Amino acid sequence: MDCIFCKIINKEIPSNIVYEDEEILAFKDIAPQAPIHIVVIPKKHIGKITQIQKEDEALIGKIYSVINQIAKEQGIAEEGFRVIINCGENGGQEVKHIHFHLLGGTKLSGKIV
Amino acid sequence: MDCIFCKIINKEIPSNIVYEDEEILAFKDIAPQAPIHIVVIPKKHIGKITQIQKEDEALIGKIYSVINQIAKEQGIAEEGFRVIINCGENGGQEVKHIHFHLLGGTKLSGKIV
Repeated sequence: MDCIFCKIINKEIPSNIVYEDEEILAFKDIAPQAPIHIVVIPKKHIGKITQIQKEDEALIGKIYSVINQIAKEQGIAEEGFRVIINCGENGGQEVKHIHFHLLGGTKLSGKIV
Repeated sequence: MDCIFCKIINKEIPSNIVYEDEEILAFKDIAPQAPIHIVVIPKKHIGKITQIQKEDEALIGKIYSVINQIAKEQGIAEEGFRVIINCGENGGQEVKHIHFHLLGGTKLSGKIV
């Protein structure tokens, strides 16, 4: 599997990990677009949103509980944050392993496109 | 409950519904920021991401299956799309009922903040 995020999961590529359990990993984005920019991924290789299967729903839901835990730990739970998931070419998805961008630490633009 | 999205769910306020089941509703955004801009919400009133509880995880996961169904129906599943969830003040959340913006129909900007 030539997936950069799978390599991060397998610790073949170093990353600044902020959360890890058996199913989910979160690490700091190497090119942050906000003061706090964390990438949250399932360890299962799901390529993109459109590849989520019925049996993945619980895992995807759990990612939100993890996002909440990270937001608390990073001190941005109260002031707020944004979650962005890009899917495919038009969505601007770069790495073909589903990932949830958690962005915060500043007032984010109202412009979302 | 003085929540505009709960009123849309209860059909007290009209909306252009594209998907509905017992748990989830999706409708066209009245101020679209992309050629396709649909708002997907749980019927359960969850105020924002940080109010998601453990027992809501399955519902949140199911929203992604619904997003996939809508993306197919709207003809944007292949070319791609973006999902954005704003949380709280810094996230730019306007309506205090958790909602998932589904944006597509054009190549979205790489700039995500």
